[in-house]
Parts: sequence; C-alpha cells; structure tokens
Amino acid sequence: MDELPLSRTYRFIEPGPVVLVATLHKERINIMTMSYHMVVQDGNQPLIGCIIGPWDHSFEALQETGECVIAIPTVDLASTVVEIGNCSGDEIDKFKTFGLTAMRARKVKPPLLAECLVNLECRVFDTSLVDKYNFFILAVVKAWIDPDRKERRTIHHNGDGTFVVDGEILNLREKMIKWPDYL
Amino acid sequence: MDELPLSRTYRFIEPGPVVLVATLHKERINIMTMSYHMVVQDGNQPLIGCIIGPWDHSFEALQETGECVIAIPTVDLASTVVEIGNCSGDEIDKFKTFGLTAMRARKVKPPLLAECLVNLECRVFDTSLVDKYNFFILAVVKAWIDPDRKERRTIHHNGDGTFVVDGEILNLREKMIKWPDYL
Repeated sequence: MDELPLSRTYRFIEPGPVVLVATLHKERINIMTMSYHMVVQDGNQPLIGCIIGPWDHSFEALQETGECVIAIPTVDLASTVVEIGNCSGDEIDKFKTFGLTAMRARKVKPPLLAECLVNLECRVFDTSLVDKYNFFILAVVKAWIDPDRKERRTIHHNGDGTFVVDGEILNLREKMIKWPDYL
Repeated sequence: MDELPLSRTYRFIEPGPVVLVATLHKERINIMTMSYHMVVQDGNQPLIGCIIGPWDHSFEALQETGECVIAIPTVDLASTVVEIGNCSGDEIDKFKTFGLTAMRARKVKPPLLAECLVNLECRVFDTSLVDKYNFFILAVVKAWIDPDRKERRTIHHNGDGTFVVDGEILNLREKMIKWPDYL
C-alpha cells in the first residue's frame, strides 16, 4: 500500500461508496458494512461523519477505543460486503469467515484490509451527536491506497439490496472555473 | 410528479449522488450544487445531514428561512450541475441562466426543480453543529419523484471535477437475510 495524502482522502468518500469499518476491541477484530457517511471537512485535516448505532457490534468498540479503519472495497468484493453486513460480530470472526487479510495500521490499532482499494485510519473526533443520532465525526489520521489494483470501481447501496457499480467517468474539470487548482 | 413515500427517500440519498439545493430568501430563488451529504435517519421521519457553509450563497437563506428543496439530477444535467456550482447566487439568477423550471412545493416555500428525478422538501431540524462544521440536519417533510423520466442514472463527484455516472446494477437482495422485507 502507498501512503495517500490526507488532503486527497475526501475524493474517495465524496462519491458515496459503500465502505467497511474495522474495529479492534477486547483483542477481537470486527468488520461492519457502512453506507451512511459523508465528508464533513476536506483539506489537510479531513473529517468524516457517519452513523454507527448500538445495533452495530462495532458501536461499543468505537465508543470504547475511539479508533477504526474505514476501508473502501471495489466491485469484486460486493458479495463479501453484503455478507459482512448480514451477520453479527457477536457470532463469528468476519476476517476468518470471509478470507480477508488484516494488515497492521500505522497510527491506530484496528487493521487495514489488504483487499480494499483505500484504507483510512480514523480516530473519533466529535461525539456530540452520538446520543441523539448515533452520528460520529471521525478524523482521518493516516491514509493508504493500493496503487497496483486494477479494479477500482466502487459500489453504492440503493438502500434496498441493490447496488450501483461505478460506470463511465465524466471529466468536467474545464467547467470548474472556481477551483483552478483542478486544472 | 408523483408523491414518493417518506420512508423511501433515503434510497435516493444513500448512494451518494450530487444534488441541487434550492432556497428562497428575500423573494429570490437560489440553487447550489451539493455533494457533502448523507442519510442520518431512514424510516418514516427521514433526516439528511449536509454541509452548507457561509461560502455558499444558500447558507444565509437556509439559516434565515429554515427551508430548502433537495433535488436529485440525472446525468443529462451534469454540465448544468457543474455550472451551477461554479457561479454565485450573488451575481446571477440561476433559474433563468440555466433554463430550469421551478414548480410549487407543497410544504415549503422554495420550489421543486421540474428537470430533476427526485425532489425532497426539507426543513432545518438540528443546527447544533452548524457553528463548528456548517453541518445541518434536515428533515424531509414531503417527497416527489418523476415517474415518466427515462434517464435515471445519477452522478457522483470524485472531488476533482470528474464525476462517476451510475453503471450496472447488482441485485444482492437474496443475500440480505437480515432484512426479509426486501425480498
């Protein structure tokens, strides 16, 4: 994995892909699927907002440890992503069950997922809306990308068990007159 | 436009499309492009979280009136979406400039956008993180969908002036064992 500059991490969250979230609590790794998340702040101190609730096994881990890894899978992992979302960490070891490879992260204890395109090491940054909405704000503290990966299409959940795969790319940079640094 | 049940609105936000936001303030309609947003709550009282900052002309309108319409454009509007994002409501009337059609909303004063697939009438619901992050939570109070629209592919911003268009659909409902109501 190559290091991904923090200032570029928002570019992988903004399009809205389904992501995996890894936590480590009581010597146990858990992974969950997540689709309610967004960029809260871009720039050099990226913040991600997300909903992780008490119904998720990862909620307690995140509350207790304040750390997670957000991993962005591509379409080849679509079935695994759904299966991970459909079983509880109470019952099984998702890493073993789904043949995923844990790699050591640099700044947090939960692992990176070797099979994913991008991995974001995150620390809980703001919990003020957790009680009301289960809304966490996470700070990305280190980021990684797999430069060798050929399949880079992500998937987006339509909320009904169907997923949209990334299709064609439109390049409209020349219209982005406000942000000349894109040019 | 047909009414869209509130309980189904999250299905159009969860995949992460770029959206347009219409406001009405001091007898003037404004539209902005938005890409930092998420589902905060699904079900019959849908909540949407989004970042709208003082750099957006719509920020003051939203603060003052507490109302907006979130409209979801499809790929045929991609150029317009970018152009809307690149000019300020201070300077021009975006409706006139881009040939968009305003339709009367039912529960809020800002208009629906006739050219969009989905329109969500929203009221500001929680402003507790506006000062810190420009993070608004909006309640969807009425929703509409254009049943006759053939082009239904939305676009997702990669954060660099390129956009991913919706591609193929994967149907993984049969793996969604946790949510038998999808079947």
